[in-house]
Amino acid sequence: MNTTPQAAPWHVNLMTLFPEMFPGPLGQSLSGRALEKKIWSWNASNIRDFATDNHKTVDDTPFGGGAGMVMRADILERAFLSIPNPGKRIYMSPRGRVLNQRMAEDFITAPSLTILCGRYEGVDQRFLDAYDFEEVSIGDYVLSGGEPAAMILMDACVRLLPGVMGNVDTAGEESFAESTGGLLEYPHYTRPATWTTADGRALDVPDILTSGNHGKVAQWRRDQALALTRARRPDLLKTND
Amino acid sequence: MNTTPQAAPWHVNLMTLFPEMFPGPLGQSLSGRALEKKIWSWNASNIRDFATDNHKTVDDTPFGGGAGMVMRADILERAFLSIPNPGKRIYMSPRGRVLNQRMAEDFITAPSLTILCGRYEGVDQRFLDAYDFEEVSIGDYVLSGGEPAAMILMDACVRLLPGVMGNVDTAGEESFAESTGGLLEYPHYTRPATWTTADGRALDVPDILTSGNHGKVAQWRRDQALALTRARRPDLLKTND
Repeated sequence: MNTTPQAAPWHVNLMTLFPEMFPGPLGQSLSGRALEKKIWSWNASNIRDFATDNHKTVDDTPFGGGAGMVMRADILERAFLSIPNPGKRIYMSPRGRVLNQRMAEDFITAPSLTILCGRYEGVDQRFLDAYDFEEVSIGDYVLSGGEPAAMILMDACVRLLPGVMGNVDTAGEESFAESTGGLLEYPHYTRPATWTTADGRALDVPDILTSGNHGKVAQWRRDQALALTRARRPDLLKTND
Repeated sequence: MNTTPQAAPWHVNLMTLFPEMFPGPLGQSLSGRALEKKIWSWNASNIRDFATDNHKTVDDTPFGGGAGMVMRADILERAFLSIPNPGKRIYMSPRGRVLNQRMAEDFITAPSLTILCGRYEGVDQRFLDAYDFEEVSIGDYVLSGGEPAAMILMDACVRLLPGVMGNVDTAGEESFAESTGGLLEYPHYTRPATWTTADGRALDVPDILTSGNHGKVAQWRRDQALALTRARRPDLLKTND
């Protein structure tokens, strides 16, 4: 009998006004199969369920004036305290620490996350401070809300969980992985070796890749990765010094 | 009679192996309403429909060896040429130019986008070169595929389209907007003015915000935004020099 003990799944609690957005794309493909295999699990709390008035109000105007509405600390607290296993607390916000691969690797070491997804202008700062939420941004752009950003953070994490990727090698050779020294990945080519486009251009793959010389292929890929990183993302080379 | 001429919607073509992931979160809330109002529209082509063999193969092993599979240029070309209005071409990839707010503002000036979402190890570089796809990354992390990244790019763009945000002021005062000089946003507070947490901590909003002195409030917010940016994202201050 095969009775391998099953580890508890990595769990994500979502605090949101749009619980029906989840799991969204995470319910399919790689992360969807991992969900079925109980490698990870999720739960979404609808913040509106924790409103205390008949109108189910969750926000109010900002002190000091200005446009937009701010989510109330007292309502957020009620939603948060209903979560039995909050684990690490994250608030998706363009003001936050910018997500990178190392942070994703770190987040999966926590048994669970609680991710607050904002809408409107923002949330009352006192709630974030009182309950130790770390602000995390997925990049320097503004989204309609925290939900799509939470999906990105979850996707980046889930694929790193043991048993999610079919091929262990694949996870190790990508952009930003430790094994490539933080360089952008080299270009890929597959069959046909000569591809003739619809408008008649005959495009060959680089000769070196069909040479069978593994050492030269490895060197070419390293050179390509370095040249691409230097051209597109010199900032990555600096942080690796 | 009110017969305001309707502009053609901003259109996004998606090339994907998972068309059922769309519109996903974009079908709800702000972008969902904009979709109903025909401010934007989308179409997803299933790349697998353009395979030419009985097994519907879209990928093959990489020339030069290595893990993972690479999407074939000839199949991608067939999918691409079926799109009547490709507009600007984008390939979601961690190797790409990193998305920012200015790029989103630029992308909505194109009448349409075609976004290629990769899965597996990558796509044949010759396809990207032959059809002028720009590689765009949403950040320095690896995702399970290009689909969640495409949703982020679309979300950042859609909310900038005229008529999508209810309140024009709200779009103008956020993190990374021109009007804040590229600073992170100041903290927000709303009622109650004194919030007592469940474990009895009484937390007040900063006095200045309830003072009614608009000049001092504006100065305080500017100072907070600058201090936060200096602490969390000094890189943003450098690029503004």
